[in-house]
Amino acid sequence: MAKITTRSPLAPEKFPDLPAIAGVRFASTEAGVRYAGRKDVMLALLDPGSVMTGVFTRSATRSANVLDCQAKIGGDSDAGAAIIVNSGNSNAFTGRAGEGSVAAICEKVAEVTGLSADRVFTSSTGVIGERLPHDRITAKVEELAGKLSVDGIEDAAMAIMTTDTFPKGASQVVDLPGGTVKIAGIAKGSGMIAPDMATMLVYIFTDAKISRADLQTLVSRINDRSFNCITVDSDTSTSDTLLCGATGASGVEVTADTEAFATALEAVFMDLAHQVVRDGEGATKFVTVNVTGAANDQDARTHALAIANSPLVKTAIAGEDPNWGRVVMAIGKSGAAADRDLLSIRFGDVLVAEKGWVSPDYREEQGAAQMKQPEITLNVDIGLGEGKATVWTCDLTHGYISINADYRS
Amino acid sequence: MAKITTRSPLAPEKFPDLPAIAGVRFASTEAGVRYAGRKDVMLALLDPGSVMTGVFTRSATRSANVLDCQAKIGGDSDAGAAIIVNSGNSNAFTGRAGEGSVAAICEKVAEVTGLSADRVFTSSTGVIGERLPHDRITAKVEELAGKLSVDGIEDAAMAIMTTDTFPKGASQVVDLPGGTVKIAGIAKGSGMIAPDMATMLVYIFTDAKISRADLQTLVSRINDRSFNCITVDSDTSTSDTLLCGATGASGVEVTADTEAFATALEAVFMDLAHQVVRDGEGATKFVTVNVTGAANDQDARTHALAIANSPLVKTAIAGEDPNWGRVVMAIGKSGAAADRDLLSIRFGDVLVAEKGWVSPDYREEQGAAQMKQPEITLNVDIGLGEGKATVWTCDLTHGYISINADYRS
Repeated sequence: MAKITTRSPLAPEKFPDLPAIAGVRFASTEAGVRYAGRKDVMLALLDPGSVMTGVFTRSATRSANVLDCQAKIGGDSDAGAAIIVNSGNSNAFTGRAGEGSVAAICEKVAEVTGLSADRVFTSSTGVIGERLPHDRITAKVEELAGKLSVDGIEDAAMAIMTTDTFPKGASQVVDLPGGTVKIAGIAKGSGMIAPDMATMLVYIFTDAKISRADLQTLVSRINDRSFNCITVDSDTSTSDTLLCGATGASGVEVTADTEAFATALEAVFMDLAHQVVRDGEGATKFVTVNVTGAANDQDARTHALAIANSPLVKTAIAGEDPNWGRVVMAIGKSGAAADRDLLSIRFGDVLVAEKGWVSPDYREEQGAAQMKQPEITLNVDIGLGEGKATVWTCDLTHGYISINADYRS
Repeated sequence: MAKITTRSPLAPEKFPDLPAIAGVRFASTEAGVRYAGRKDVMLALLDPGSVMTGVFTRSATRSANVLDCQAKIGGDSDAGAAIIVNSGNSNAFTGRAGEGSVAAICEKVAEVTGLSADRVFTSSTGVIGERLPHDRITAKVEELAGKLSVDGIEDAAMAIMTTDTFPKGASQVVDLPGGTVKIAGIAKGSGMIAPDMATMLVYIFTDAKISRADLQTLVSRINDRSFNCITVDSDTSTSDTLLCGATGASGVEVTADTEAFATALEAVFMDLAHQVVRDGEGATKFVTVNVTGAANDQDARTHALAIANSPLVKTAIAGEDPNWGRVVMAIGKSGAAADRDLLSIRFGDVLVAEKGWVSPDYREEQGAAQMKQPEITLNVDIGLGEGKATVWTCDLTHGYISINADYRS
């Protein structure tokens, strides 16, 4: 098991004060799935009338939990819903036994809460390939159900952590003509994403009244430009899960076209996505890669991810080296259209390279000063068209190697 | 500039004895392009009657040298050919000035050797984005031409090194019905491939008599399963170049269908390709990834490269951790077809996982013993079809981070 390291230097100062979301209650406890002396299971219960939506890993080897959530997420029901999450064991690549564990947990939660099992959603994160000791979890369900509280979200954020160095939360309050709507979410993850201990899990709740179809539309769209635009190490988890539930308890009706609501929801997604990058394994720099001028948006995304995933770009950033040549290399290898002589590259607002060469006015000290910042922006204009994309990443450091190579799982 | 590190632990014991190839002579010297006190330019001269073939980086931002070689390589000529290579400066992303440097060097070599400039091929490797001081190279061409020797290939292999920790050479001697044919080659490169100091350059020579078209057919085919199947860090150089020349001086005629010749040529390619991996930046393990049972060969290659390029797989290998879960993760993210319950994974000949879970007979000590070897084979069967592929890579270590982050370029 990877050693838990000290709090990321890019972490926010403290966990934010999250507003209670009417219609959702949380509980967490110590089930001893793998860790001793810390909370490792959380239960969230959404009242009747809630709608559930989600997005999931596209991995071909996804876990039993993900397959089960995907099978259930499209169901319409007025009966409410439950989310139960454990850390310490991912229940991934555990064969048919993994499906049995999911079923056992869902049945127990259904029995205790009175919900149908197809309204119970599970996630597991932690070591893979080891049988999930689900008895330890089912043994705690009654205790969890007995202490559900609208204020339990911060403890829930703690319970789902694995190699995370800080709990992640974000919220927005939106004033609409019909009243006030609240949104609060939690996330865990410190890679994009290691299957061992760093799967990305995200749970977001709102008291807005919205149809399942409209909320799913918003969730899919916003996910594409937030969580789908972050990368720590280009590795994709077998368990990545984002669930978003709306209780309707505010009585304030919104749709996919309610701009203020969509904007607030995106702010919560983006805040949590950035916090995952800030907790990237070994990260010392938070990096924004903006690509403009590509032939189309897809090409821009391809270039941006090639830059963000390049080990040579990421190690240069770790070394505070304004090595624009490695950015050129990454663009060249991406496979998307580019022309050396039309590129321009800026570190922050410093023009570094243009017209196929280093900019005549550029001085190395300018680039070096940019690279010393904890937050770095690489702006690349491809010079071909109108396509654009932004992705976020972190640097590649000795810390990443230590977390992933020096300690045996 | 990256600090030159100690000789790779995976290096061969010594530079091999390479046979002289009739019709090719070599010279090298100290031009002081960037390095002091070492040879940094080499000239190879092929006699009239030689044919030249090659393959090049597919980078969209390739260097002026590559573009120039690509424009010339298809030309038929009986006039012989020259190859001139410098280390210390890659002449990449140097705008129009880069093209001027290539032209100046080609003209000087043409003038001194009596060749047409379109029979002069150049490569440059080293720092990018800095103007190539080509005057230092052209000033040495007469000296180089004056000391050409059939025995100069080892010095040539030394002259083209940058971050390489050892010079790379390989050869084969083939007895054919018509007589004996010799093949000898040299290479440099220690990433796949950093643009700063680790571009991959390969020069292979034979005294076989073969048409340009037939040799190009063989070179392209063999390259696809040798140099196109190695990866150190997934990064692609702007300057990768492989040139293969046949002098015909043996008088032994071969074609693309001469099996013994093709086999020997492939052995030289493969040997050099593996040496590049063995000199991968920070490498401590030489890793062979065999994928079988994929839906088709392209899918097998996609899976194999996803495994070989995964930072989490590579750090697990560095840590001697038999972490088969990370192999499952890499297969899942590759995008090629896979089914968790049909996979089987072997470390060497130890069956680790099958039917969606760890093998019932597998014991962790068996996997751990495999991982302690300096050469590791990962055998993955996808269980879907007949597609197969093999790629070679190395581990991802603190050494890689040190070379690429700790020293400023």
